Amino acid sequence: MQTSIANTDLLDADSPDTVRLSAKEAAQLGEDALKRVGYTAEDARIVVDQLVDNALCGYKFAGLPRILAIAGDGKTTKARTPVRIVHETPVSALLDGGNNVGYIAAYRAAEVAIDKVRASGVASVGVNNSFYSGRNAYFVEKIVKAGYVGMHVASAVPRVLPLGGKRPALGTNPICFGFPSEDGPVIVDMGTASLMWGDVMLHAHIGQPLPEGVGFDAEGRPTRDAVEALKGGVGTFGGYKGFGLSFAVQALGLLAGSALTRGDVQDYGFLFWAVDPNVMLPGGGFEKQMSELVRRIKATPRQPGVAEIRIPSERAYRERVRRLKEGIVLERKVVESLKAL
Amino acid sequence: MQTSIANTDLLDADSPDTVRLSAKEAAQLGEDALKRVGYTAEDARIVVDQLVDNALCGYKFAGLPRILAIAGDGKTTKARTPVRIVHETPVSALLDGGNNVGYIAAYRAAEVAIDKVRASGVASVGVNNSFYSGRNAYFVEKIVKAGYVGMHVASAVPRVLPLGGKRPALGTNPICFGFPSEDGPVIVDMGTASLMWGDVMLHAHIGQPLPEGVGFDAEGRPTRDAVEALKGGVGTFGGYKGFGLSFAVQALGLLAGSALTRGDVQDYGFLFWAVDPNVMLPGGGFEKQMSELVRRIKATPRQPGVAEIRIPSERAYRERVRRLKEGIVLERKVVESLKAL
Repeated sequence: MQTSIANTDLLDADSPDTVRLSAKEAAQLGEDALKRVGYTAEDARIVVDQLVDNALCGYKFAGLPRILAIAGDGKTTKARTPVRIVHETPVSALLDGGNNVGYIAAYRAAEVAIDKVRASGVASVGVNNSFYSGRNAYFVEKIVKAGYVGMHVASAVPRVLPLGGKRPALGTNPICFGFPSEDGPVIVDMGTASLMWGDVMLHAHIGQPLPEGVGFDAEGRPTRDAVEALKGGVGTFGGYKGFGLSFAVQALGLLAGSALTRGDVQDYGFLFWAVDPNVMLPGGGFEKQMSELVRRIKATPRQPGVAEIRIPSERAYRERVRRLKEGIVLERKVVESLKAL
Repeated sequence: MQTSIANTDLLDADSPDTVRLSAKEAAQLGEDALKRVGYTAEDARIVVDQLVDNALCGYKFAGLPRILAIAGDGKTTKARTPVRIVHETPVSALLDGGNNVGYIAAYRAAEVAIDKVRASGVASVGVNNSFYSGRNAYFVEKIVKAGYVGMHVASAVPRVLPLGGKRPALGTNPICFGFPSEDGPVIVDMGTASLMWGDVMLHAHIGQPLPEGVGFDAEGRPTRDAVEALKGGVGTFGGYKGFGLSFAVQALGLLAGSALTRGDVQDYGFLFWAVDPNVMLPGGGFEKQMSELVRRIKATPRQPGVAEIRIPSERAYRERVRRLKEGIVLERKVVESLKAL
């Protein structure tokens, strides 16, 4: 649901500089590349499954190009151990991410959350000692497809200025909710920063100015220069409320053990809460009610010029259906770089 | 944490039109009034405990004046039955609010959530067949004071226009998170509407224009006339993200059984999720980490002219300390109306 320049149909246009691949071809390309930089076949499959899904859903720069970032990240070359449960109860678990990239660590945590909620009706699962996990909606969709309502937050390292501050003290701290309905998963996924960090990097890369009021340089001065904002940070969305939400996500990250490994309260922590709607509603019926809620909101009379009331995740899942047929368009340079890894 | 005209120190000024009462005197006044309109002593105590706390924390119009609204609400005169659990598991409960006002129904649900999380480590508790519950932070503070991390959402009847819509389809749908720390509860509490509904009513009452871009009349046209906005609605805060959050809260209300009693997916549902930090972090230490997070964020270098980085709930709890000494200031007319009930 995040609108950004990274997310537009125009990027699907074919040109001499692009390559069109099916989802299966893209997955093969990505998995081969990750295996060459030291990932096991299973880990490569887990990472690439999300990256291809991101691309299918229209988040082009959250797709295969991320493999180049993962390969170049200092943490990738440090020792990794398999993700493992370090503490658990029938309703909860804490996982050590083993310095694996978040794509893998959060995936494992979502799996454990599904097992716990299936057995107990409610679950709280966290994972730490990890980093960048990509798109929250990907993990939450797995929980929803298993039949459960889920919440997922990801605290991170400081990139975002608190209200009134000159330096980053909060992560981009996304929050995501997911609900099963008769018409499939409905996912609300939002960063609490005023712009995705990947978008700041993209603006810097292509030399495009940031929107007004979003970026701050290393001295905390407002800037529209994305290169300067990379040395400083961005603000939270929605004024004091967005700041409050970002703060809450950072605190929930502590519950996922974000401070346990490196002793830093401003670090990565991935937390999942899941509830089986059938332990809440004795006669069932949540999925039906959810579809009815979506129908009602979509049927709201519209403002002039508004073609459709769009429900969160609706656009992304429509695009996925289309791209599963039409394929994913990648820059030829990206494909070559992946093959050269 | 909601800034509004209802929330300013200026309203503490004494004048011939005001009465200053201690918290205890205010509670007595409120409880007597509620008992006269048919509430039991215990229910009156529960309602008034929140109202006095709201006033102490600086939410003046969420204080004793609300008793006049409760007494005048059509639902108050309809049959009420005691709040009761209709379905439960060791980790969850669904309560029938028995057409009691939300102040009572959500209070009971928070009590059950505390019992469940104490016994099981994680809890999901919902209550429906109720209405207006007041200030979410009040309930969440109880969960936090018992030692737990809590989330609380309250879905409600349509007052808020979805993005692109001309008519309300969402409630004001607040969301609240609470965390224990070594320095006391830290609570993030926010409405997802661009303005609290009580604030719209207050603007209408005193004839003050609404801020630009907040209100819509019955035809969905932007208006700054609060009387017209009462016939229409308000928007969500923070653009598409605020809309997404409001939508998520409405959906979480379904999990609290909001659609069970009246068959309406756009009705009141109060949901609590609670987690014992000790089931997540084996060695404990959450409260210490939470205090450290607050200290770090407050220590962020500040923008010119900013005296302090303010953490959510900090202002409210400071004001509570002050007003516990100095008393609460009420309009004489409100006191007289309460005595005349």
